[in-house]
Formats: sequence, C-alpha cells, structure tokens
Amino acid sequence: MWGMIATWRMAVEGVTKGCEMLKEGGNAGDAIETAVREVEDFPYYKSVGYGGLPNEEMEVELDAAFMDGDTLDVGAVAAIKDYANPVSIARRLSHEKVNSMLVAEGAEKFAHKEGFERKNMLTDRAKAHYRKRVKEIKQQELKPYSGHDTVGMVCLDAHGKMTAATSTSGLFMKKKGRVGDSPIVGSGFYADSKVGGASATGLGEDLMKGCISYEIVRLMKEGMHPQAACELAVTRLDQELKERRGVAGDLSLIAMNTKGEWGVATNIEGFSIAVETEELEPTVYLVTRQEDGHCTFEVASQEWMENYMKTRMAPIEE
Amino acid sequence: MWGMIATWRMAVEGVTKGCEMLKEGGNAGDAIETAVREVEDFPYYKSVGYGGLPNEEMEVELDAAFMDGDTLDVGAVAAIKDYANPVSIARRLSHEKVNSMLVAEGAEKFAHKEGFERKNMLTDRAKAHYRKRVKEIKQQELKPYSGHDTVGMVCLDAHGKMTAATSTSGLFMKKKGRVGDSPIVGSGFYADSKVGGASATGLGEDLMKGCISYEIVRLMKEGMHPQAACELAVTRLDQELKERRGVAGDLSLIAMNTKGEWGVATNIEGFSIAVETEELEPTVYLVTRQEDGHCTFEVASQEWMENYMKTRMAPIEE
Repeated sequence: MWGMIATWRMAVEGVTKGCEMLKEGGNAGDAIETAVREVEDFPYYKSVGYGGLPNEEMEVELDAAFMDGDTLDVGAVAAIKDYANPVSIARRLSHEKVNSMLVAEGAEKFAHKEGFERKNMLTDRAKAHYRKRVKEIKQQELKPYSGHDTVGMVCLDAHGKMTAATSTSGLFMKKKGRVGDSPIVGSGFYADSKVGGASATGLGEDLMKGCISYEIVRLMKEGMHPQAACELAVTRLDQELKERRGVAGDLSLIAMNTKGEWGVATNIEGFSIAVETEELEPTVYLVTRQEDGHCTFEVASQEWMENYMKTRMAPIEE
Repeated sequence: MWGMIATWRMAVEGVTKGCEMLKEGGNAGDAIETAVREVEDFPYYKSVGYGGLPNEEMEVELDAAFMDGDTLDVGAVAAIKDYANPVSIARRLSHEKVNSMLVAEGAEKFAHKEGFERKNMLTDRAKAHYRKRVKEIKQQELKPYSGHDTVGMVCLDAHGKMTAATSTSGLFMKKKGRVGDSPIVGSGFYADSKVGGASATGLGEDLMKGCISYEIVRLMKEGMHPQAACELAVTRLDQELKERRGVAGDLSLIAMNTKGEWGVATNIEGFSIAVETEELEPTVYLVTRQEDGHCTFEVASQEWMENYMKTRMAPIEE
C-alpha cells in the first residue's frame, strides 16, 4: 500500500504529483518533498512559499519541516527568508546529526552554503494583501489573525516508509521571528514508520499546547484508527483549551497509518483535505464537524472546486 | 505541598532562592523565573546565560522557555543574543495569545520594546574556551559536542500551580541559528497543573525525536510515579534511537507531579540534579543508571561539591 494525505484543497496537485512517484515505487521522502514543493511554488496560495503573506514588517518569513519515520530524523527551518523551497532545506537538514533545526539568518546561511538559490518571495499580490490589511487595521480594531493555512502532509510508500512534512508563511502580519507549530516536531508534524504520521494546521500557539501530532501518532500506536485518533486528540485539546482559557484556536489535523488508512478532524468550519492512496484517486474532501466531535467528510463538488480557484485568483480590491 | 526540581548541580542556588518564595506562598511562575535567572546570571556556568559558550561564529545565542501548567501558556525564545535573562523574555511572551515563540532578531526586537536591557553576553572566559576549542578542532577531527548542559526546571507551588522553564546557550560551537530541544514545547519541557511537569537536558536533536517531556507528563497522567515515568520514557527513547540509528545521544530528564513527588532518569554517566520540597532541604543528587534502565541517586558529597565549583572556576589553559 502507498498513499498521501494533506491539509487543504491547495495540496491536491502536489499530492497527485507525489503519488505518481509512489506508484512507481518511489520513496516517501522524495514524494512528500515533491508534493510540498508544488504547493510552495504556486503563487496564488497565500499561506505557503512563493506568494505567502508577509509579517508585520512586510517580510515573508517561512517555516518548514521534514521527518523521516524510519530514522526519526527531523529537519526544520523557521523564520527563513528568500528561499523558494523551505521544505527542501528542511529535508537537507534532517540528514544532520546536530544542527538540524536552524532559524532566521542561520538557516539562510546554511541554505546558501548548500547551494539553494535565493529568491525574493514577496510577490506583488502579497504586497497588495499587506497594504489592504494595513488599511483595515487602521479602520478597525485588530481582529484575530486569519489565513494560517499551513500545508502539512503525511506519506506512506510501497516499501513501508513513512514521512511527514510541513510548509507555511505562518500568521499573516505576525511579529518578526514568530514561529508557529509547523516547524515544531510533535506539534506540527510527527512520523514513525512503525505506526503512522500526523500533521496539523490552525493556530500554532494552541496546537503546540497539546503536542497534538505526536499525540495522534501515539494513539494510533495504541491501536486506534487514524480517524478515531484525530477526533479524540482534537476533541480533548479543544476541551482542555476551552476549560482553561475560555477559547480554543483553530485545530485541524490529518493522519495516516502504515496500512494507508487515514483520518481527519477539526474544530472549525470549512476545513478541506487532499488524499490519494493505492485504492483512491486524488480526492478533495470537505470536512464537517458534528457537535459530538465526530467528523464527516464528503467529496468536494466541481462547483466548489471551481469557486475555490476563482476566489484564490481574484483581483485584490485595495 | 510545594517543590522544585532542576537539571544539574548548577541549579541548586537558584532552586534554593526560588523555594524561599514558595515557602512564603509565592507562585510557581515567579519562583521558577527567579530560580532560572540565578543560573543565567552566574558567569562560571558555561552553558546557560551570561558566560554561556558561543556558536561557531563566536556569538552567544540563547534559547529559553516558560510554560504555565494552569493555562498551558507557552512562551519561548531561540537564538536570541545580548539579553541577560532569556527566561524572563520567554515568560513575558507566554502571556501573548499569538506570537508567543520568537527567534533571533525578532525576539531581540520584542525584548527591546518590552524594556529588557541589552547586555553583551560573551565573557572573556567564554572567548578563551572558544579559542581553545578552535585550536583543538584544528589539531584533531571534530568530536561530538559536549557541554550541552541546559538548565531545566519544574515547579509546584502551595496553591497547586505547576510551571516548567528552561534556559541554555545550546551546543558549544553550534551553527548560527541552531535550535535544540530547550525552547521546544513537549521536547525540552512540559507542564500541566492537573498532572505534573518534566524537563530535559542532553542532545536536543535526539530528545526532540521522542517529544520526551510531553511523554513523561502523559505517563504521569496515566498514574505513573515521576520516577517510573522518567525511567520508562528514557529507556524507550534510548532503545528506539539505538535500534533505528545505532546510537542514542544524551537523554537526561527530571519530573515532578502535583503531590511534589519527583523523578529523574538518564542514559549517561555523571548526571546531577537539584531538588527541594516542603519535606526536603535543597539537595544535590548524583544519578546512576543501572543496566536495566532503573536509576538510583545519592546525595553529592561535600568533596564532590567543592571539586565541582573548583573545576568550573579553574583557569583555562589555552
């Protein structure tokens, strides 16, 4: 069995491309890197890679991570600027025994020495979003952030190797140097080839409070199906946060186990995922949370898919 | 009941000072911050705060974190330069709903705006260590890093609140921007006032692979005594790493639960801890690992204590 699952509709082209490699016996490291790069490279996704929204200083600072479920190797970059494919830098770092998580200028120096090409990641479109947001903030009180749509993926190859990877530009208008859950092992991602993998998107600061990706893999290790593991972990963390803080940020999780079984859970409206396995063609699902915490999902309609892309590519009214 | 436990002998003066606050009904946030600051301020401890050893560019880059076990608030800084007390900046950040983990220049900007004073953290002694090390590296192959002695603490106050905190200059001669486990929630630290807290020291890159502090708190949540939880988590991660990678880095953990019961486990020789509780005066223990993974500890002798400080303060032969 092989398969790949990812957060958000935006990942489906990448998943499709990565799974072409899996079909031909490719390994889960190459496939997931290829899949995430596809999302990073698409300029109209404003939360990942090129075209990602900037921080409050109008700099695009990117976070990414890669985990090898065989060796438990982890590589991560955070607050890195001006490199096209943070996930590839993270994967390169995962081969280092020490110094495998690098931030800011240190991460950029490493990338440069390793031959990665610099690229100005701030697009005109992202600048327009920025200017619009600055105006909005002037006109009204600062609202909770939106647009924190990390791409997170879990991959299983035909040889039984599992990987996880993430990539994001983080919260729009974040403070310089802010790091969310995406490059944090156990929070934004976790993979163990003996068990499975999980990855998160949502409010990083809250996802981190529960080490939720690690927790989901652990629940699968106890024998739980990925769907049950995702639902239980999201429900528990959502409840703990509400009990202790009155409110819980967005928590959306995906997971896959060694059999290619997968699951998804969320505490928000409007979460979508992309999945492909040996038995399932590339599919976008829309996820609905029930009041009891169970999550159902249905295939996205053609209309929804078309509207999605139209919205992403619409001109920005400043 | 109240109490505090910390990694390494170097923490005992801080623990003593923090526990004076706990005795008088002080809260676990103030007490642990005071305790960690004491270690940060002592110039002869070369792995934490002032006097900490620099990275390969001769810059002292510091990592620190703070977690509030009531709210699960987490604040963290990584790769921050030229501030005396990173733990206080981390604690300040823990009050932010978003942007609560900041790295490098972004963390420095935040600290400056919040009124923290800049301080050149590179001491003459640290420079001497650096020059010596550069010579050693020239004369022989680069050896595994040493001196990664993070201070990690867990604190319980008389009101039942628990906190965890860490502070470190990280691996001596690390790459610029390198982040270890210390500012990573779940890996370097975790605290939940309903259960207990844990904190780690050792090879950050390996500690992170098991989200080991979160795992220990989780085992305590299942009813395990802190000693059993520490031993089980360390033994399991040590075995997984050896099985998958042939070798496991240094893993040393401490934990305390809501009753003030505490535990410690390690996979190395020479780990020491500092503990004080309502029932135990400030004490330094030397930890010994048995072949089966169980760990015993004995009170450090007066001779050991004197020799420790003599070694720390000895002139550096370059």
